[in-house]
Amino acid sequence: MRETKRKANTTTLGDKGTPETGGSLLTGVSLPAAAIFEAPLAHNLAWMQRFAASHGAYLAPHGKTTMTPALFQRQLEAGAWGITLATAPQCRAAFAAGVQRLLMANQLIGEANMAIVAGLIEAGAEVYCVVDSTANVEALGRHFAAAGQTLNVLVELGVPGGRTGCRTLEQVLGVAHSVAAQPALRMAGMEGYEGVVHGTDPVPAIRDYAAQLIACAQRLDQDGLLAVEAPIITASGSAWYDLIAEAFDAAELRGRFVPVLRPGCYVVHDHGLYREAQRGVLTRRPDLHEGLLPALEVFAQVQSLPEPGLAIIALGKRDIGFDQLPEPLRRYREGGNAKDLLSVAGWKVTKLMDQHAFIALPEGAGDVRIGDIVAFGASHPCLTFDKWRQLCLVNEGLDVVEQMQTSF
Amino acid sequence: MRETKRKANTTTLGDKGTPETGGSLLTGVSLPAAAIFEAPLAHNLAWMQRFAASHGAYLAPHGKTTMTPALFQRQLEAGAWGITLATAPQCRAAFAAGVQRLLMANQLIGEANMAIVAGLIEAGAEVYCVVDSTANVEALGRHFAAAGQTLNVLVELGVPGGRTGCRTLEQVLGVAHSVAAQPALRMAGMEGYEGVVHGTDPVPAIRDYAAQLIACAQRLDQDGLLAVEAPIITASGSAWYDLIAEAFDAAELRGRFVPVLRPGCYVVHDHGLYREAQRGVLTRRPDLHEGLLPALEVFAQVQSLPEPGLAIIALGKRDIGFDQLPEPLRRYREGGNAKDLLSVAGWKVTKLMDQHAFIALPEGAGDVRIGDIVAFGASHPCLTFDKWRQLCLVNEGLDVVEQMQTSF
Repeated sequence: MRETKRKANTTTLGDKGTPETGGSLLTGVSLPAAAIFEAPLAHNLAWMQRFAASHGAYLAPHGKTTMTPALFQRQLEAGAWGITLATAPQCRAAFAAGVQRLLMANQLIGEANMAIVAGLIEAGAEVYCVVDSTANVEALGRHFAAAGQTLNVLVELGVPGGRTGCRTLEQVLGVAHSVAAQPALRMAGMEGYEGVVHGTDPVPAIRDYAAQLIACAQRLDQDGLLAVEAPIITASGSAWYDLIAEAFDAAELRGRFVPVLRPGCYVVHDHGLYREAQRGVLTRRPDLHEGLLPALEVFAQVQSLPEPGLAIIALGKRDIGFDQLPEPLRRYREGGNAKDLLSVAGWKVTKLMDQHAFIALPEGAGDVRIGDIVAFGASHPCLTFDKWRQLCLVNEGLDVVEQMQTSF
Repeated sequence: MRETKRKANTTTLGDKGTPETGGSLLTGVSLPAAAIFEAPLAHNLAWMQRFAASHGAYLAPHGKTTMTPALFQRQLEAGAWGITLATAPQCRAAFAAGVQRLLMANQLIGEANMAIVAGLIEAGAEVYCVVDSTANVEALGRHFAAAGQTLNVLVELGVPGGRTGCRTLEQVLGVAHSVAAQPALRMAGMEGYEGVVHGTDPVPAIRDYAAQLIACAQRLDQDGLLAVEAPIITASGSAWYDLIAEAFDAAELRGRFVPVLRPGCYVVHDHGLYREAQRGVLTRRPDLHEGLLPALEVFAQVQSLPEPGLAIIALGKRDIGFDQLPEPLRRYREGGNAKDLLSVAGWKVTKLMDQHAFIALPEGAGDVRIGDIVAFGASHPCLTFDKWRQLCLVNEGLDVVEQMQTSF
């Protein structure tokens, strides 16, 4: 990697991935830097795999969240069936990182993107993408016939007023018949995404949507439109995966279908949107006991203390997701020990600029110094990962144990 | 560059930077992709250089906007005095790309960041950074003394209720005296940023701020606190550069000081915040005639047309800045010609997700197809550049003439 790419870190890694320099409390690391904690990461990897398995489902974690091959590898090692991606270049990056089974949860559009996918199939990848229109089916049919290949497709079921996907069973059947008319396409199942279902109480609406998705898959099967031995049925983001898993489980699909869940954010969880969503999951499912744990934080330093009650942090929109303003979690003195925590009680981020965060300090904030290191939580993780070319995997003592490259 | 890094483009460039494959209308380019248009880029480079020169000022464009070495090179070739950066890793990236004179418009904090800057000085870079506190001055003094180096510093003047920087002349003098007490630091001038001045009519407040900045610089000079032959006075972002340039010009600083302007966004301008800001500049300064031109667009394709009046575009928060929702500018049919424009009249982005944009289509939107290519404008450019590892430089016919790597 070129020197100019190394945004996060000045530590040089030795052959075995251990820092040559550095040490506890991110010593030697240029801050701001994004860090993933080993223990909650391992917990989350195992937790979601166990959750899927306990519902008779497979896991294809959405890789767009992290685009971090070292995490894809850990997800596969934990038992994932494949990796879900959003775009053709993301599929290419995942395949280059060793992922063989790629579920592209979007319609594949554009000749250049089709060429990327054709290249992956040529190289041995098992690729699935989704379709929601006969026009796209015809374009794919032409492209992959010309390439002498067969592309696996899943028909997408959407929701009225939602995002992509067929709105009705009739449309699903229409698209499936158009797939059947294309020798270069193989009808491999049904795909949906419940995250775009809205309403004051989304739970019954999501259950209805899951039932509709299952009914569509079963109808395709009855009509002989499924062209593979083990067709796929897949849905679920990171907020309502329990409802989807329960619906797939209760419908006893497994004898005929491969039920696949696709949460992405679970792997590092978060301190906002998904923390909130998890409260819903654990309220619905008290049997799950302890849920996911937040594993991703961004560390930054106090840059200026220009007037009483105001700290400016060297942390900005360039460094952290900002669906919600970042949350100060802990503070350390630079050069100190990771166990010596300083207070951030009452600290509140009031504004985020490109490279600066404004913190309102409470009365009596005590001994705050320029250079103090503050750990921030954020929401949601996708928009934190994409700020970084590499992240630091750290242990509890904030030793960097591995640097993980991203492939955005 | 590794294959997995090549987000934007599948076109392979030959030795001369011309596409081996591809052709007009971004043929062969995986969309979405960010594109910079050659002609308005050249216009903007020359325009701002001419503007600075006509006010007797030098230009150190803020490099954080683009972090694109190929643009830094063009800015230097156009006559820039140096490049401004926000962080030590940004300085390192700019120096690695051949920029010798680096103005870091922030306080340098953290041992790891100081070590990066020390490395640049060791390698021959001319580095300036800003200080607003005696605590930071002492930390820098210790670090650079231990390194056996001298670091150039500028005292920062801020504004009450603003961001970083000293709030009063007394604080400025206090910091300057603390610099004088550090043998490893060299007092090289004054720095400010008028972009954080607020008020219902910011113009008089910014003029006052510029006057205060100049008065501080002159006072440092009178008190014999400036330790270089040609001390620097610098301010200006991309919205109010005219006011700063006029103030520097009117104060006839040039005999004694090096007046430096630091706009960054001008290089590609934008379709939102800075378009608006420019209206202000041109209203205040009708003599400037034609102003800056938007040069940066993101091209994406219609991914789904799931129901009447709704188009889903394969363009998301991962691809484009979203201070404001992106603006559809033009539409093309894939495989067609860049001159054959299709209508986007009445098209409106209503929502942006990570990888998808929702467009409300007007009644009678006509023949809209999956795969249609839509050019989007955005605001502001910093938060579009940082989504990309490379951007395409294109001509009017949308031929890719160069690929530009970013160094975030």
